[in-house]
Amino acid sequence: MEKNIVVLRYGHRPYRDLRVTTHCCLVARALGAKKIIIQGEEDFALRKSVEGITKNWGGGFELEFSPGWLEQVKKFREHGYSIVHLTMYGKPINKEIGKMRRKNKVLAIIGSRKVEIGVYRESDFNISIGKQPHSEIAALAILLDRLFSGKELEKKFPGAKMVLTAKNEKK
Amino acid sequence: MEKNIVVLRYGHRPYRDLRVTTHCCLVARALGAKKIIIQGEEDFALRKSVEGITKNWGGGFELEFSPGWLEQVKKFREHGYSIVHLTMYGKPINKEIGKMRRKNKVLAIIGSRKVEIGVYRESDFNISIGKQPHSEIAALAILLDRLFSGKELEKKFPGAKMVLTAKNEKK
Repeated sequence: MEKNIVVLRYGHRPYRDLRVTTHCCLVARALGAKKIIIQGEEDFALRKSVEGITKNWGGGFELEFSPGWLEQVKKFREHGYSIVHLTMYGKPINKEIGKMRRKNKVLAIIGSRKVEIGVYRESDFNISIGKQPHSEIAALAILLDRLFSGKELEKKFPGAKMVLTAKNEKK
Repeated sequence: MEKNIVVLRYGHRPYRDLRVTTHCCLVARALGAKKIIIQGEEDFALRKSVEGITKNWGGGFELEFSPGWLEQVKKFREHGYSIVHLTMYGKPINKEIGKMRRKNKVLAIIGSRKVEIGVYRESDFNISIGKQPHSEIAALAILLDRLFSGKELEKKFPGAKMVLTAKNEKK
C-alpha cells in the first residue's frame, strides 16, 4: 500500500522564516510527502517559490496555509493518520522507527520556535532525531528517509519540464 | 576505526545566509561531523550562535572560516580524506553509499548557490540525494545518517551543561 505522508509546519512567520520554510517545503516534496500545511497566514513569496519548483519539476505536491494546527491534527486523525511530532524531547527514532513504518498515513509535525505543550499531547509519537539541537529541515529529511527506507530518492515526478537522468551525472 | 567527517560549506554570504548556514553547522555537529569550514569571511553572528550551542551541549565541534575552497580540498586530500560533493547532478547515494562507508576520512562539500565546475572536478564522489531540488541541510543530514548507519544519533557529547535523557522524553 502506498504511504501518505503530510507535513505540518508549526508556527511559520512570513518573511522572517521564508528561506527555512521553503527548505522544509522542498524537502517534503523531494522526499516523498504529498502535501505540506503551513501554520500561519498565506505567504505569497513562499507559495510562488514552492509552486514554481513543482511546476518545473513535476509531481502533485500540495501546499496549504492554515491558521490553526489543532483543527488539522483532528481532521487528519479522523482520516486515519498517525500524528508524529519531531522534537528533541521525544523518543529516539532508532527505537521507534519499526512501529512508525507500519503506518501508511502519517502527519509529521515540525516546529521551529517553541511548540506549545498541546502538540506533544495530541501526537501519537513524539520522536527525536538525536538529542542535540539542530534543524527541523534535517529532522524531517531523516524521518522521511527512514519511513520510506531510502526508496523515496527514486520516486518519479510525473509531468516534469525538467528531469535529471544518468546522462547528467558527474563523475 | 573512528570516522572523521569534516563539512565544507561553499559560498556562505554573511547575514543573508546566516540562518541556513547555522542549520548546516548544527546538523554537522549533531550528526557526528567533527568540524565545519565555512567558505567566506568571518561571520561573527554565526560564530556566536554555533559556539554557544557547543558550549552548552558539549563535544569538541570546530568551526573555521576560510576564503578559498580549493586550498582546503588540497589540504584534506593530502591528509587522506576522500572528497564528497553533494549535488543533484551527482550519482545516487543509494548506489554509492557502500563505497563511501569504507572511507574513514571524508570531506563533505555542500553548496547553496551555483557551485563552480572545479568543485565537481576536484571531488572523488559527486553524490545526489535524490534528483529533485531541495536543501543542502537535508542532503547533509541524510549523508551523515547513511555514513554512520544511524549510530550518530546515539553519539555522546562530553562536557555538556545540558543533556537530554530518557527522563525528559515525552510519550
